[in-house]
Amino acid sequence: MKRAINFNAGPAAIPLEVLEQAQAEMLDWRGTGMSVMEVSHRGKEYDEIHHEAMGLFREIAGMGDEWKVLFCTGGASTQFAMLPMNYLGAGKSADYLVTGHWSKAAVKEAKRFGAVKLAANTEVDGVFRSIPKKADLKLDSGAAYAHYTSNNTIFGTQWHWWPETAPVPLVCDMSSDIFSRPIPVGNFSMIYAGAQKNLGPSGVTVVAIRDEFLAKASSDLPTMLSYKSYAENDSMYNTPPCFSIYILGLTLKWIKKQGGLVAMEKMNDEKQKALYSGIDDSGGFYKCPVDKDARSWMNVVFRLPSEEMEEKFVKEAKGASIIGVKGHRSVGGIRFSTYNASSVKDVKDSVAFMEDFRKRNK
Amino acid sequence: MKRAINFNAGPAAIPLEVLEQAQAEMLDWRGTGMSVMEVSHRGKEYDEIHHEAMGLFREIAGMGDEWKVLFCTGGASTQFAMLPMNYLGAGKSADYLVTGHWSKAAVKEAKRFGAVKLAANTEVDGVFRSIPKKADLKLDSGAAYAHYTSNNTIFGTQWHWWPETAPVPLVCDMSSDIFSRPIPVGNFSMIYAGAQKNLGPSGVTVVAIRDEFLAKASSDLPTMLSYKSYAENDSMYNTPPCFSIYILGLTLKWIKKQGGLVAMEKMNDEKQKALYSGIDDSGGFYKCPVDKDARSWMNVVFRLPSEEMEEKFVKEAKGASIIGVKGHRSVGGIRFSTYNASSVKDVKDSVAFMEDFRKRNK
Repeated sequence: MKRAINFNAGPAAIPLEVLEQAQAEMLDWRGTGMSVMEVSHRGKEYDEIHHEAMGLFREIAGMGDEWKVLFCTGGASTQFAMLPMNYLGAGKSADYLVTGHWSKAAVKEAKRFGAVKLAANTEVDGVFRSIPKKADLKLDSGAAYAHYTSNNTIFGTQWHWWPETAPVPLVCDMSSDIFSRPIPVGNFSMIYAGAQKNLGPSGVTVVAIRDEFLAKASSDLPTMLSYKSYAENDSMYNTPPCFSIYILGLTLKWIKKQGGLVAMEKMNDEKQKALYSGIDDSGGFYKCPVDKDARSWMNVVFRLPSEEMEEKFVKEAKGASIIGVKGHRSVGGIRFSTYNASSVKDVKDSVAFMEDFRKRNK
Repeated sequence: MKRAINFNAGPAAIPLEVLEQAQAEMLDWRGTGMSVMEVSHRGKEYDEIHHEAMGLFREIAGMGDEWKVLFCTGGASTQFAMLPMNYLGAGKSADYLVTGHWSKAAVKEAKRFGAVKLAANTEVDGVFRSIPKKADLKLDSGAAYAHYTSNNTIFGTQWHWWPETAPVPLVCDMSSDIFSRPIPVGNFSMIYAGAQKNLGPSGVTVVAIRDEFLAKASSDLPTMLSYKSYAENDSMYNTPPCFSIYILGLTLKWIKKQGGLVAMEKMNDEKQKALYSGIDDSGGFYKCPVDKDARSWMNVVFRLPSEEMEEKFVKEAKGASIIGVKGHRSVGGIRFSTYNASSVKDVKDSVAFMEDFRKRNK
């Protein structure tokens, strides 16, 4: 069996040893004679998986006991509605920092529940190629919270500085770069992420929330849309997405074993340097449309001299087992999504492929 | 490896050949060099899984093209809120037929969105041991919909007749007995079920909805809480819980291969006859507290002469690799959950264990 070099944007690569363990345990998890998918979520076996994953998340993030980890479902898209549902209402407003498709989508949902102020918006002619400077933010000190998206999967931009909005609670959608680097958790009141990029498979959304912010959430909501009810029920009011949480836990163990977020950052830095050098040193054959200080380490986007050439590139990459490199349908071009589970070797092999392709096609 | 006799109430047993296929394909699904968890939800490979599962669900249920299958998350508990959110509002009311813990929970959520009328309620002194007769239903011909729960996991009751409420749309939570028997889909406008009992793992909720009823849903809702947006986006507005849907699809294939719902009913009938005979023929050692005409085929509950004896039973069952037989914490006693993936042999072996236990302890 030959494993692919997997640059899918999400769902995305999962560390091989995580998959191998899941495979080995599929029919008989820890001698129970059952798969993880078959054990009761109320039993002590699953309970251990559940709480171990919560604890590992906090430990890796560097979050103290003042943080709760919740396991929600419905992806970041559901959080786009749940967050304002829990914190907005008549007479309240929130600040949104818009830097891409998903932060725009979050604004759309928030407007249903209260006023939204755009504290930043980097859209120019329908595209997003930059990240705001600190001085550009128009923050409202009366906002219920401020929200931003740390990495923009589609446009290939990423925040390389950390906003501070205290005393306004800062909320971040980190779906596409969570745990790719250390996080100054002191800046944040809530961090959330669909797991399917850096943390495991789709099907579970991790929401880490500070107790102080949690206390301010509405108590008058449908059970499954209330942060408080997730916290009060340890995210087990109903049956959680157990298998996704199990793979999340194995992935967190893998991150810890690699050396945690400092090691992830070092590896991701090596990958991004190799990739962007490959682009910048191509004599203009490959071009990255993103501002240099906003280039994403997770989603490296670039263009070739023509769309025909891009099609050829995607096809030949696939032939070389380099998968998932076609840019998002809304922007075209090429995108390498190099989340934590993409190895330095995979990236360097791909840069070699790029160089070879360029030589053959320049 | 010895596989357990798994009577967990949910998450529950999954057919061995489904798990074996998932295991075999874990590192390299269909020659892609990737796990199903790693492929893009926008790619043709996953697309096939997604639509094949939707089609198989309709085919097995006997649903025509006038039905849409949606893949939601957050379990039946989220549907408890989503349903009234989509159909109630000022001046509207819905009929709820209450026969257990979960139908009560559905009422609680519905009351947030409109008026709720109890068309039936079988609660007596905090417990539910019966199913209403047809003549007992107090249906409102002006209701936006009528809702009931076909099987009650905790109390071990099940509807053995099919309500008809036309022209009022009938909605059923079939989480714990879906596809255990043929369904007269003509009676229903919507059927939903968390997958983790009869259809696969937790993490995906199947919602089958008739076009006519779908058209009446609110269009003014958060995207991830709107049935219309699921239908319009083929349940791929956001990243779906791909792996859970993959296992759901394999389980549906298994059901089809066994002979569909007629075969499931035949097998489940054989299992329930063996179990209830084991109880009824025990000379009063085992006692089922449920009305005879309301006994569930999926969750067989019974009591022993004392709680101490019940504890001993659970312990010895576990020693005999019979797992998950402790009754729900709210009602005590013993519960065998014998969903589709429990084989006739597993059940008969367990009845033999019961008989042996009785002889040793009478």
